[in-house]
Amino acid sequence: MKGLFNLKSLTITQVNSILSLATKFKSGYSFSFSGKRIATLFFENSTRTKNSFLMAMLKLGIDYVDVNISTSSVNKGESLYDTVKTLESIGFDAVVIRHSIDKYYQELENINIPIINAGDGKSDHPTQSLLDLFTIYEEFGHFDGLNVTIIGDIAHSRVAHTNAEIMKRLGMNVFISGPDCFMDDTAPQISLDEALKNSDVVMLLRVQFERSAHLDISKEEYNKLYGLDIDKVNRMKNNAIIMHPAPVNRGIELTDEVVECEKSRMFKQMENGVYVRMAVIYKLLKEEL
Amino acid sequence: MKGLFNLKSLTITQVNSILSLATKFKSGYSFSFSGKRIATLFFENSTRTKNSFLMAMLKLGIDYVDVNISTSSVNKGESLYDTVKTLESIGFDAVVIRHSIDKYYQELENINIPIINAGDGKSDHPTQSLLDLFTIYEEFGHFDGLNVTIIGDIAHSRVAHTNAEIMKRLGMNVFISGPDCFMDDTAPQISLDEALKNSDVVMLLRVQFERSAHLDISKEEYNKLYGLDIDKVNRMKNNAIIMHPAPVNRGIELTDEVVECEKSRMFKQMENGVYVRMAVIYKLLKEEL
Amino acid sequence: MKGLFNLKSLTITQVNSILSLATKFKSGYSFSFSGKRIATLFFENSTRTKNSFLMAMLKLGIDYVDVNISTSSVNKGESLYDTVKTLESIGFDAVVIRHSIDKYYQELENINIPIINAGDGKSDHPTQSLLDLFTIYEEFGHFDGLNVTIIGDIAHSRVAHTNAEIMKRLGMNVFISGPDCFMDDTAPQISLDEALKNSDVVMLLRVQFERSAHLDISKEEYNKLYGLDIDKVNRMKNNAIIMHPAPVNRGIELTDEVVECEKSRMFKQMENGVYVRMAVIYKLLKEEL
Repeated sequence: MKGLFNLKSLTITQVNSILSLATKFKSGYSFSFSGKRIATLFFENSTRTKNSFLMAMLKLGIDYVDVNISTSSVNKGESLYDTVKTLESIGFDAVVIRHSIDKYYQELENINIPIINAGDGKSDHPTQSLLDLFTIYEEFGHFDGLNVTIIGDIAHSRVAHTNAEIMKRLGMNVFISGPDCFMDDTAPQISLDEALKNSDVVMLLRVQFERSAHLDISKEEYNKLYGLDIDKVNRMKNNAIIMHPAPVNRGIELTDEVVECEKSRMFKQMENGVYVRMAVIYKLLKEEL
Repeated sequence: MKGLFNLKSLTITQVNSILSLATKFKSGYSFSFSGKRIATLFFENSTRTKNSFLMAMLKLGIDYVDVNISTSSVNKGESLYDTVKTLESIGFDAVVIRHSIDKYYQELENINIPIINAGDGKSDHPTQSLLDLFTIYEEFGHFDGLNVTIIGDIAHSRVAHTNAEIMKRLGMNVFISGPDCFMDDTAPQISLDEALKNSDVVMLLRVQFERSAHLDISKEEYNKLYGLDIDKVNRMKNNAIIMHPAPVNRGIELTDEVVECEKSRMFKQMENGVYVRMAVIYKLLKEEL
Repeated sequence: MKGLFNLKSLTITQVNSILSLATKFKSGYSFSFSGKRIATLFFENSTRTKNSFLMAMLKLGIDYVDVNISTSSVNKGESLYDTVKTLESIGFDAVVIRHSIDKYYQELENINIPIINAGDGKSDHPTQSLLDLFTIYEEFGHFDGLNVTIIGDIAHSRVAHTNAEIMKRLGMNVFISGPDCFMDDTAPQISLDEALKNSDVVMLLRVQFERSAHLDISKEEYNKLYGLDIDKVNRMKNNAIIMHPAPVNRGIELTDEVVECEKSRMFKQMENGVYVRMAVIYKLLKEEL
């Protein structure tokens, strides 16, 4: 089975080669495929990831079709395999999929075109991790020895899980922080104070209040205990940066002043997402991955 | 902040230069941008305006992404600013927005790419007015001294508000007509009889029965009192024309025979809409507006 | 009125010329239109048909706009005629329509651009029939004298109705099989045993349990009585093939092993659909049909 499913299955060399090609694209390198078409198949809401993939395709001269789930035969109960096999039969060169089921792609073993995982359940979100890595590397010029603290609902976050695994392999020191009910064994837990004092990268996750039945605190209280305001930002290390995969809950993870403060890379991350997705698509279509 | 938000902020010279470029496009002039991408972000239903914008982009060689609001992160409560900033960060060259909130664009001051207003609440719909002006100019060859009567729910119509302001500035005599509960101080109110007798342009607005709690009359009665049938059309001036922004309520504003009668410009307006939108997009991307 | 509405109105020569052009496209012939745009307007769910049409357009260098019904002015009660006339006025070169109303296109007599019927109610689905014919011809090299049995809900199937008419005209012997409540006078009814023994083509139709109030049997029982499992497949003629328009109900019409067994052409049909749709679009835009 071809595709990008998670980063666990990639070597450090492969990860670096994606980041290096992304850097090349950001520096102005352009490449245009001819006669390639990719379908996007999103079973969960998305603005950033889907449109970032579409932009990456457009920049590579690839035609896209965004398969509208709500009006597709999925509503007639068609299986994921049959839907994807249909897209393959019709002639798409790859499919980008987001699905709420962990490891949905295991069902797709007999598909012969590359599948690009744009998020599966609570498991993985490999292109989000790649853009996070790209943004960190762009900032610091290296990974080794950097302290990263991921703050928020670690347990339910595919971003946190994919990031922690690859960051450790790249030599970064990963910590987690947040309410106890959000913690798991992804990395050692530290307090927000320690995070502010020691981290080179403070990465906040979106709180999904609608899903967090156990979180019995107000939004203001969450910000006070686990989010950032400008005072806390001022306690961070000089060159430290703030990251957030967005969409942000303004006033919860970040106050309004923090969203676009000097240390925030939130919109820079989105910009970089296009280049890493161009690199992933390029490598899969060229069979270099 | 760059973009087109309303016509009030444009000079007559600017309006005329858009109409003049639109005329050039309609006469066969073609121009193809390379590597430009525009996103459409419609928070209200639309067939005409959205697809007219998409056609204008395609004719200019611009790639489009229609951001599907119902499956976007807007459903996760993301702010309009954050959604638009995301589209800017991803690399779109402009965004076309329709929103139910009056002057929604005031929230977008820190956006650096052009915003094209495709309708905001009850306030403005600048490209609809431009296509109306284009259609009138195409018909009469001038604006000065023409009598225009806008008939229907003036109070809730962004089309009426944008049109009345620019038409007066262009030297046209603007009147309004319709049920009292639909009137405001946009222009002097006249009877339907006067409108038929004196107008060069009779512009009807869609009645939104679902929103008009105060309008306690039947559809047939509305047509009799404030709409057009072929008898009334025959009482209009020889060269007078009928306009309607569509979608039309057949049998209410216009009977079936009137929709495509000799005096009706309803579908001609739609055709012209593509050319004025090409002109607006061209000028914004070329920073001529 | 231009377009493709059903196959009844085409001569055998016209059908053969479409199939012959489709063969040419499948063999690698390419043609690229310049400056053509087609809109898709689907009032019923679809994955295969819509995306197959979009792929056909992309392969022909045609830009598409997929008009999203749920966010269009159709929600404001606009008539089908006015919506399609709008798309014509905006400048689309053709419109592909699926609608639940039988012969919806009769309302579109005054439209001047080609309409391509992608399914109307229970009446017709001409491009599905063309891809079925293409797949059969590809397999057998001729039509004359082939035995075809269509199995399932014949009475409510536009695929069955369009297929039976054209297949008979092409010299094929058409039979139907299935529960009595699904039968009509489309063709002589035979038992499943006869179908397996004598058919060159066994074509199964999707059971729409949600619509079949009269069908009071379990899914397993349906498969046993009217569907295929691998044992029944083994009783088919040596060179016989299995067809299904999809989406398939796995375990009902076909068991999992049958879906991709050697005799099944289900995904091949989807592949071929793109080529026949390219041929139809080509011929309509070139005014050869």
